[in-house]
Amino acid sequence: MNSIMRPHVFINVAASADGRISDESRRQIRISCEEDMQRVDRLRAESDAIVVGIGTVLSDDPRLTVKSQALREERVKNGRTPNPLRVVVDSRARTPLNARVLDGEAETLVAVSDLADEERVAALREKASVFVAGQEKVDLRALMEYLYSIGVRRVMVEGGARLNHSLIAEGLVDEIMVYYGGMIIGNGPCIADGPSFKPPVPLELVRVSRLGSGVLAVWKVLADKS
Amino acid sequence: MNSIMRPHVFINVAASADGRISDESRRQIRISCEEDMQRVDRLRAESDAIVVGIGTVLSDDPRLTVKSQALREERVKNGRTPNPLRVVVDSRARTPLNARVLDGEAETLVAVSDLADEERVAALREKASVFVAGQEKVDLRALMEYLYSIGVRRVMVEGGARLNHSLIAEGLVDEIMVYYGGMIIGNGPCIADGPSFKPPVPLELVRVSRLGSGVLAVWKVLADKS
Ligand SMILES: NC(=O)c1ccc[n+]([C@@H]2O[C@H](COP(=O)([O-])OP(=O)(O)OC[C@H]3O[C@@H](n4cnc5c(N)ncnc54)[C@H](OP(=O)(O)O)[C@@H]3O)[C@@H](O)[C@H]2O)c1
Ligand SMILES: NC(=O)c1ccc[n+]([C@@H]2O[C@H](COP(=O)([O-])OP(=O)(O)OC[C@H]3O[C@@H](n4cnc5c(N)ncnc54)[C@H](OP(=O)(O)O)[C@@H]3O)[C@@H](O)[C@H]2O)c1
Repeated sequence: MNSIMRPHVFINVAASADGRISDESRRQIRISCEEDMQRVDRLRAESDAIVVGIGTVLSDDPRLTVKSQALREERVKNGRTPNPLRVVVDSRARTPLNARVLDGEAETLVAVSDLADEERVAALREKASVFVAGQEKVDLRALMEYLYSIGVRRVMVEGGARLNHSLIAEGLVDEIMVYYGGMIIGNGPCIADGPSFKPPVPLELVRVSRLGSGVLAVWKVLADKS
Repeated sequence: MNSIMRPHVFINVAASADGRISDESRRQIRISCEEDMQRVDRLRAESDAIVVGIGTVLSDDPRLTVKSQALREERVKNGRTPNPLRVVVDSRARTPLNARVLDGEAETLVAVSDLADEERVAALREKASVFVAGQEKVDLRALMEYLYSIGVRRVMVEGGARLNHSLIAEGLVDEIMVYYGGMIIGNGPCIADGPSFKPPVPLELVRVSRLGSGVLAVWKVLADKS
C-alpha cells in the first residue's frame, strides 16, 4: 500500500563481498572500481535529489555533485539544475558549516528534527534550506512527502548504514543497487544496520552482472509498507 | 607463499543481500533457494572434508552429509566414503554428544585446543576422532596440515562468521563462494566477523551469475599469507 505520495526511492551502495560499506574506523574505503564510479555519476545525474545521513557527512564529507561536465550540461539542456538537490538527514543539525555538502555548488536541504538547536538551524539556513520534521529522529516519511511536494520524483540514497536501515524499515525504498567489490573487510557498518528484520525484507533480483572488478546487483524491494 | 602443505580450502556461504548469514538471534535462516541447495549438495559430494565452527553446530545443529543418494553412490563408485569427513572446530570440546554431526552417518573429527576438558574429550572420542592443536583457539593451520596428512585435498568450509574470519585472517582460504539471497536481514553475523582487515583482503571475481532467486558469486582470495 502506497498511501503517501512520495518519489521513487532507490539506495545505491558499494559494499565489500561480505556486505561492509566501511571498516571499524567508519572512514571511507574505496570499494568501487572506475566503471562503478561512472555508473554512480550517471545515477546521480538522473536523480532529482541525493539523500545521505549525517553519519556519512561526518565521516566521508562527500560533495554529492555530478562529476561529469557532460552530464551536468545535459541536465541543463533538459531544463534542470546542473546538479540534483542534496539532502542531509540530520536530526540535531550537526552538519558542519564547512562541510562540502554546503559548498554552494548545488542546492542543499538539511532535514532536522525538533531536537535541533535553533542557533545551529539559523546558521545552516545561511547555506541551505532547512526542513523540520520528527520529534527525535527525522521523520523520513514526512521528508519524502515534502520532497515530492517540491517536485522531486526520483531520489537516490547514498547511505550510510543506519539511514538505509531506517528507510527500508519504513517501507520507503523501492530498489537497492549494490556494487559488491572484490574485498573482504571483516567488520564495520553494513549495507543496512539496525535491528534485524523479522522476517527479513524480501527482495526480487532485477538483474545482476559483472561490473569492472565486482558485481552489480539490482534488487527490488517487495515489501512496501508505506 | 604457500609454505605449508594444506588442502585446497573454499568457503561456501549463503548471505542476505546485506551480507548477513543469520539474524540477531543467530538461529538458522533459510537464505538459499532450491537451486542453491542442490549446488551445495554437489559441492559437499566433491569435497573430502566439510569444516564448521562450534558456533554453527550449537545454533544450527547441521548434519553436513550429502543429501542426494545418487551423489553418495557416485562417491562410493569412485572408491570414496559416501560422505566427506565432518570437522568441527571446537576449542573447548563443547560439541553436544547428541549433535547431528556425531550421528554416525559419516566420520567426524572434532578439533579441540589445549583448553578442552579431558573428560569431555574422552566422551567425544566414543563418537568421533579428536585432533588437539592450539593453546586457546584451535590452531587452524595445524588442522589444515593434519587434514592434508590424512589425505584430504579439498576442504569445504560451511561457516560460521567467526571461523570464516579466522581462516581468511590466517591466509588459509583459496576461494569464497557466496550465494546472495533476495532479502535484507539488517543485523546479525556476517560472512566474516572479527576485527576489520586493514587493508581489506583482496578478492578476484572468478564468476557471477543469477542462481534461482539470488546471485552466485565466486571470489578467489588474492592475499595468500600461508
Ligand atoms: N560504501 C558506501 O556506499 C557508503 C555510502 C555512504 C556511507 N558509507 C559509510 O557509512 C558510514 C556511515 O553510516 P552511518 O550508519 O554511521 O551514518 P548514516 O546512515 O549516514 O547517518 C545516520 C545518522 O542519521 C541521523 N538520522 C536522523 N534521522 C534518522 C532516521 N530517521 N533514521 C536513521 N538515521 C537518522 C542519525 O543521527 P542524528 O540522530 O544525530 O541525526 C543517524 O545516526 C561511514 O562509515 C561511511 O563511510 C558508505
Ligand atoms: N548462512 C550460512 O551459510 C551459514 C553457515 C554457517 C553458519 N551460519 C550462521 O553463523 C552463525 C554461527 O557463526 P559463529 O561465528 O557464531 O560461529 P562459528 O564460526 O561457527 O564458530 C566459531 C567458534 O569456533 C570456535 N573456534 C575455535 N578455534 C577457532 C579459531 N581458530 N578461529 C575461530 N573460531 C574458533 C570458537 O569457539 P570456542 O572458542 O568455544 O571453540 C568460536 O567462537 C549462526 O548464526 C549460524 O546460523 C550461517
